[in-house]
Amino acid sequence: MSPVSNIPAIVVARLPLYLRSLNLLAEAGVTVISSAELGARLGITPAQIRKDLSFFGEFGKQGTGYDVLYLRDKLKEILHLDRQWPVVLVGAGDLGRAIAQHGGLSERGFHIVAIFDRDPQKIGQTIGDVEVENIDLLPIIVRRRKLQIAIVAVPAHQAQRAADALVASGIKAILSYAPIRLHVPDTVQVRYIDPVIALQEMTFYLSE
Amino acid sequence: MSPVSNIPAIVVARLPLYLRSLNLLAEAGVTVISSAELGARLGITPAQIRKDLSFFGEFGKQGTGYDVLYLRDKLKEILHLDRQWPVVLVGAGDLGRAIAQHGGLSERGFHIVAIFDRDPQKIGQTIGDVEVENIDLLPIIVRRRKLQIAIVAVPAHQAQRAADALVASGIKAILSYAPIRLHVPDTVQVRYIDPVIALQEMTFYLSE
Repeated sequence: MSPVSNIPAIVVARLPLYLRSLNLLAEAGVTVISSAELGARLGITPAQIRKDLSFFGEFGKQGTGYDVLYLRDKLKEILHLDRQWPVVLVGAGDLGRAIAQHGGLSERGFHIVAIFDRDPQKIGQTIGDVEVENIDLLPIIVRRRKLQIAIVAVPAHQAQRAADALVASGIKAILSYAPIRLHVPDTVQVRYIDPVIALQEMTFYLSE
Repeated sequence: MSPVSNIPAIVVARLPLYLRSLNLLAEAGVTVISSAELGARLGITPAQIRKDLSFFGEFGKQGTGYDVLYLRDKLKEILHLDRQWPVVLVGAGDLGRAIAQHGGLSERGFHIVAIFDRDPQKIGQTIGDVEVENIDLLPIIVRRRKLQIAIVAVPAHQAQRAADALVASGIKAILSYAPIRLHVPDTVQVRYIDPVIALQEMTFYLSE
């Protein structure tokens, strides 16, 4: 396997898509799949799939295709999904509540274990089985529990401040729903949930 | 410009990312950018950017780079973002409320003009300045207003039913937050908001 730093981010970004397809194939009872079939499902060329996977080792023999369960398990290992991840959530408004309750996170290994807000009305409320805590306690709790992953669900004007507090407390990965670009050190991963990007892909196909 | 059907979906999916970068560049006062510089910002090769844009015409001269404002406006035209789009929202729970109020949609041209739910407690409530209507009225309202775009923010077990009603009423593009795959005709675009995919990209970089 190549060192992490040599693997292009865009390659890493495709691995969860491969994994999702392999999970669906496994559920459907498919045991072997070729890069051509997998590519057709994903809109990615077979050559690209083979090249992406070659960063991580040998997963199939020429002409026989990939063993679905084996490749799925290897991808889970590569993506560090062979374990459960505790997650901190910042923001207990409508969006935070929705993420904590309906996000489909926990069944896929991401467990929200702490929720913070600065609104006194929200502090002390329970979402799922987690009590909303005062955001001033964030550094101490994140450090004590050695949390690495955070979801930011606060309004745009509060998002950078939340990110700063998270980074200072040792968080290494932030998923932000706020519609602004966050500034964080290179050592911290950030991804964005932006519904507008997805809508803009679709308007291409619409006419008035 | 190539016919729509000849343009790979994966190319179309990159156009909103180009547009977002060009918007940021324009805000920063940058007037000209090379495909190499744009590529470096996006983690996409310059050759890929030139190839993607070539589907739609000639946007830059060899060696001089792209005119930021011109390319931005052309991309808006290509993506049909040179107009405002009315959007129907299904689901007035926490997530629906969050999308309607904090999604950053309207400032980027997507206006939620109708909201539906089947919960009698939610029907009649006002979110932003839109009243939540009984979902039984969805077909008549979507048809009358000739709406084409919908956002689905209902629990997983209600999502397919919502999608079926939307498609039957003439909706052509669905953005779904429900963690299940929707079955729709080929003539309908579907995109998913899936926070787990984004989290899985980041765990690659984490260790215990």
